[in-house]
Amino acid sequence: MSQTRPVFYVSDGTGITAETIGHSLLTQFSDTTFIGERIAFVDDVERAAAAAKRIRDAGELHGTRPLVINSCMDSRITDALAESGALVLDVFAPFIEPLERELGEARQRHVGRAHAIVDFDTYHRRINAMNYALTHDDGMAVDYTDADVVLVAVSRAGKTPTCVFMALHYGVRAANYPLTEEDLEHDRLPAHLRPHRHKLFGLTIDPVRLAEIREERRPGSRYAELETCKREVAAAEALFRAERIPTLSTTHTSIEEISSKVMSTLGIRREMF
Amino acid sequence: MSQTRPVFYVSDGTGITAETIGHSLLTQFSDTTFIGERIAFVDDVERAAAAAKRIRDAGELHGTRPLVINSCMDSRITDALAESGALVLDVFAPFIEPLERELGEARQRHVGRAHAIVDFDTYHRRINAMNYALTHDDGMAVDYTDADVVLVAVSRAGKTPTCVFMALHYGVRAANYPLTEEDLEHDRLPAHLRPHRHKLFGLTIDPVRLAEIREERRPGSRYAELETCKREVAAAEALFRAERIPTLSTTHTSIEEISSKVMSTLGIRREMF
Repeated sequence: MSQTRPVFYVSDGTGITAETIGHSLLTQFSDTTFIGERIAFVDDVERAAAAAKRIRDAGELHGTRPLVINSCMDSRITDALAESGALVLDVFAPFIEPLERELGEARQRHVGRAHAIVDFDTYHRRINAMNYALTHDDGMAVDYTDADVVLVAVSRAGKTPTCVFMALHYGVRAANYPLTEEDLEHDRLPAHLRPHRHKLFGLTIDPVRLAEIREERRPGSRYAELETCKREVAAAEALFRAERIPTLSTTHTSIEEISSKVMSTLGIRREMF
Repeated sequence: MSQTRPVFYVSDGTGITAETIGHSLLTQFSDTTFIGERIAFVDDVERAAAAAKRIRDAGELHGTRPLVINSCMDSRITDALAESGALVLDVFAPFIEPLERELGEARQRHVGRAHAIVDFDTYHRRINAMNYALTHDDGMAVDYTDADVVLVAVSRAGKTPTCVFMALHYGVRAANYPLTEEDLEHDRLPAHLRPHRHKLFGLTIDPVRLAEIREERRPGSRYAELETCKREVAAAEALFRAERIPTLSTTHTSIEEISSKVMSTLGIRREMF
């Protein structure tokens, strides 16, 4: 029998760490339906008490004990949250002591540092990569000299969000090039892609899914017809095989997963921002 | 004395969860310099053994014990990683048992599910929000009827990456409008923004930083002069005050933090993808 549980991601910063680990944990439990809510910037005891009240109220409303995924570093905040009666899981607590012992250094009590450190350098790399992705989106600029990767695919196969994700989170200069019907007829790489063959990565997609996506964009068009999609995808896949370009299907793959596979395949090693 | 430690983020999926929590943890230790590397898609014992070798080699190279932030769900993989001699911190292990007890349900052993679930609905919301952000970037389209939020600021204050982040991670339809010199002279909101006042959020920035950013973009231009930046920022801030638009400075704020504050200020509640 399926049950419903309120889950609160509580953080002294943005809540992204708590929500990321919380999602990963909760996907392991499929008999329960979770109703999630983020409570960010809980950086003093008053805000923690207010959060505890909200959590307790949700528990009473649903008639069940709420879960709290807590990434606040200050133990007084954690204590105040525990007053809600929820099951509080503290995402950092289990690791602090082993790390202190291993590193021979006491941890500092910075509040919400992970997503708050903004040195100018990091900011710059991130923004420049982002600008690169936007100016080299969809074949707009086709000089790929400075690209780290060029995604190649037919229109609407998932190139743009993948490029933007890699730029935003890894500072990767990611361009993308849409294969046109003309490119596909010639059955070989367009000339401006050839010098950058080692940076190319092909995306492919189930033609049925592609037709659905295109239909939403341009209803009733030839562009969205299943026949068009089938022909374009088949031609693109043949081209990737002939040119030995590494390929991935985006049909059942998340943007995160596509990005990660592209980077590991091309040997692009970057730390996440 | 500062020491250097190799850190490996090992995952059976993309490695994003491991890297996110790892960064948060390690920023708590500032005497140590960490050299991070991601090893993604470690989904069987052979790959785990290969990863263990790489980790052991890095330890020997640096003459120190490596750290492993591990998000693999399979304990046989964790055991294989432990062969490396590194300190292995398992990001999920401490929470599984309390959750099983609380939920009265045994966890499933899905590999790398967190960033791999792609139902068509989620994919759609994400991609549509992304398209919205790109077509409503920088005042390109100024019909904000369907917007969840419209960021308003002078050119280069951080609007675009923030909009794209909110779209990609929360499915928020985020538009942005650059205040032009003409807008700023009139000292009141441009006509097409007025009906959407409750969706507006103003970004501001230190003029010195703004001048640096603009200088990189258009060296030696009047646009990049400190005087221009000072005048535009002052006029924008006066406008935000007069129109009672909530405001945040992006100077020392990460994209994640700006996004989180914008959403909590405007009461936009969305779960993270």
